[in-house]
Amino acid sequence: MNRKNVLITGGLGFIGSNLARRLVEQDNQVTIVDSMIPQYGGNLRNLYGIEDKINVNPSDVRDPFSINQLIKGQDCLFNLAGQTSHLDSMEDPFTDLDINAKAQLSILEACRKHNPKVRIVFASTRQIYGKPKYLPVDEEHPLAPVDINGVNKMAGEWYHLLYQKVYGIPSTILRLTNTYGPRMRIKDARQTFLGIWIRNLLEGKPIQVFGDGCQRRDYNFVEDVVDALILAASNDDAIGKVYNLGAPDPLSLKETAEIMCQEVKDSTFEMIPFPKDRQVIDVGDFLCDHELFSSSFGWTPKINFNKGIKLSIKYFKEEIDHYIHN
Amino acid sequence: MNRKNVLITGGLGFIGSNLARRLVEQDNQVTIVDSMIPQYGGNLRNLYGIEDKINVNPSDVRDPFSINQLIKGQDCLFNLAGQTSHLDSMEDPFTDLDINAKAQLSILEACRKHNPKVRIVFASTRQIYGKPKYLPVDEEHPLAPVDINGVNKMAGEWYHLLYQKVYGIPSTILRLTNTYGPRMRIKDARQTFLGIWIRNLLEGKPIQVFGDGCQRRDYNFVEDVVDALILAASNDDAIGKVYNLGAPDPLSLKETAEIMCQEVKDSTFEMIPFPKDRQVIDVGDFLCDHELFSSSFGWTPKINFNKGIKLSIKYFKEEIDHYIHN
Repeated sequence: MNRKNVLITGGLGFIGSNLARRLVEQDNQVTIVDSMIPQYGGNLRNLYGIEDKINVNPSDVRDPFSINQLIKGQDCLFNLAGQTSHLDSMEDPFTDLDINAKAQLSILEACRKHNPKVRIVFASTRQIYGKPKYLPVDEEHPLAPVDINGVNKMAGEWYHLLYQKVYGIPSTILRLTNTYGPRMRIKDARQTFLGIWIRNLLEGKPIQVFGDGCQRRDYNFVEDVVDALILAASNDDAIGKVYNLGAPDPLSLKETAEIMCQEVKDSTFEMIPFPKDRQVIDVGDFLCDHELFSSSFGWTPKINFNKGIKLSIKYFKEEIDHYIHN
Repeated sequence: MNRKNVLITGGLGFIGSNLARRLVEQDNQVTIVDSMIPQYGGNLRNLYGIEDKINVNPSDVRDPFSINQLIKGQDCLFNLAGQTSHLDSMEDPFTDLDINAKAQLSILEACRKHNPKVRIVFASTRQIYGKPKYLPVDEEHPLAPVDINGVNKMAGEWYHLLYQKVYGIPSTILRLTNTYGPRMRIKDARQTFLGIWIRNLLEGKPIQVFGDGCQRRDYNFVEDVVDALILAASNDDAIGKVYNLGAPDPLSLKETAEIMCQEVKDSTFEMIPFPKDRQVIDVGDFLCDHELFSSSFGWTPKINFNKGIKLSIKYFKEEIDHYIHN
C-alpha cells in the first residue's frame, strides 16, 4: 500500500500508531482521529519521530461532525478506535455502547453519505466468541460474548457487514486475539493483561497470575497485526468477510509469565486466586484458528512470543516514563 | 400467574396490551410503561374496558429515571418495548439503537440496582437469524441479522443473557415470529406486513404481495404468544434460556393473501415486483422450530391462521376507526 490517503480511528493508540508508522514509511498520507481519553490507549509519544508526517485530529469517534469531514477523500479507513476494557464495560456499559456500537454506526453513516467507496478494515476481537465450545476457534464458532464489551463489539462488527451488504461499502473484519508490542498501554490491564505485567516487571513487582495459570492464550506481535491489517485492506477478496488472526504457538499464562521473567533480572511471578469480577467474565483457554486468513492471503506471524516480548520490554525499558507517568 | 405485581414495557402496544388484558383477568396488578410514539404500536384503545384496572405510565424506556422507580416491587417484567420496523431501522439507525439496545441496558441496570430478583421475559425476534441456512430454524442456527433492527435486537437479547449470567437476574428470551391478532398496528407495515394487508382489505384496496409470493412464513396468533409469555415467566427452568416460538402450519405469502381475501367480500390481491429497499433486507422462506419450547413447557399454538385471521378481521371491522384515524 502506498500513496494512499488513509484515515485511522484510534490512531494514537497501540495498534493504530504502529500501523501509522508503517503507512508513513510506505509513503501514504495518514490522518489520525483519536479522543485521547485518559483511560484508553491514545498517547502522543506513540508518534515520536513522525509527528510532522501525520495529520492528527484530536476528536472523538462519537462526534459525527468530525468524521463527516475527515472521511472525505480517504482511500482507506482503518477503524481501530474502541473501548477495550472488559471490566470497564461492566462498570460503565453505556460508554462502552456509545463507543463500540453507536460511534461505529456514526462512522458508517458518514461513509455512506460522504465516501461510500472507502475501503474499511474494522478491528474486532475474539472476545465476541465467549467461552470456546471447541479449540482452536474458527470463524464458524458461535458468538456468545461474556461481557458487555463483547456484545457491543459484536454489534459494531455486524454494522460493518450490514453496510457492506446493503450499501456496498467495502469492509473487512479482522478478529484480533491478544496483541502486544511497543506502544501498548502498560499503565494497567485495560488493553491487555500483558500491559500491566510489563509494568510490574519494570517496577520490580511480581507479576500476578490468576488461578492455576494453566489457561492457554495465543499472542500476536503488533508488527504481524500491522501486516494483516494492510493485507486485508489491499485485497478485494477480503471484502465482506470476517477473519481471525492468531498464532501457532499458544502458551499457558504460567509459561507466559516465565518467559517474561527471563527478560528482567530478579523478576518473579506469583499465583493468586482469581478475582471474582474477572472470573465471572473469563473465557478459559482460548486459541484462534487463523487458517482462513493465512491461506487466503499468505499471512503468517513472523515474530514468536519470545522474540516479541524481548523487543517489547526493550522498548518500554527506554520509554517507560512516557507510558506510566505521562 | 396470579396476584403478582407485573410491569410491561410497551404495554399499550399490540402484544403488551393483549398480555395485560390476560394478566388483569388472572387477578394480577399490572403496570404499563409506554412511550406512545406515533410510529409505534402504543394505542390507548388497546386497554378499552380495563383502563381502571391498570396503572399506565406514559414514559419512554430510554428514560432511566422512570424505569428506576417503576421496577421497584415488581415480581415480573415483560420487556416488550421495541422499535419493530426493519425499514425505519435502516433510515434512522440511531433511534433503533437507542430503543432496542441502549434502553435495554438501562432497564437491566435498573433491575440490577433496584430489583435484581425480578423475573424477566424479553421479547426478541426471529429477525436476528437473518437469511436461514436451513429450515426450520432452531435456536442453534447462527445469528446473522440482515438489518440494523436485527443487530440491535441481538444486542438487546445478549444484554439480558449476560445480566442473567453475571448478576443472576432471572431472564428468559422468547424469539417471536410473525405475531398477529386484535390490537396489532394496521396503519402501515411497521409492525408486520399483515397489518397493512388488513387495512387494505378493510378499505377495499387490493393486498400487495411482493415478488412471486412463494416465500413461506409462520404466524402466531397473539393469544398463543400471550400463553407462551406467561409460561416462560412461570417456569424457573426457562431462566437463562432462549426459545423460538413458531407455528406448525406455514403458508406462502400468496396462500396467506388468499385466506385473508376469503374474509372480506369482493377483496383481491395483486402480485407486484419486490421494492428494492425491502428486497435487500428480505430473508426469503422463514420457518421457526419451536420444539424446544413446546417440549419443555407443553406449549402448542391453539389457533391456526384461518381461525386467527377471522378473529382479527372481525375485531378490526368493528374497531377500525380507533386504529387508522386515531
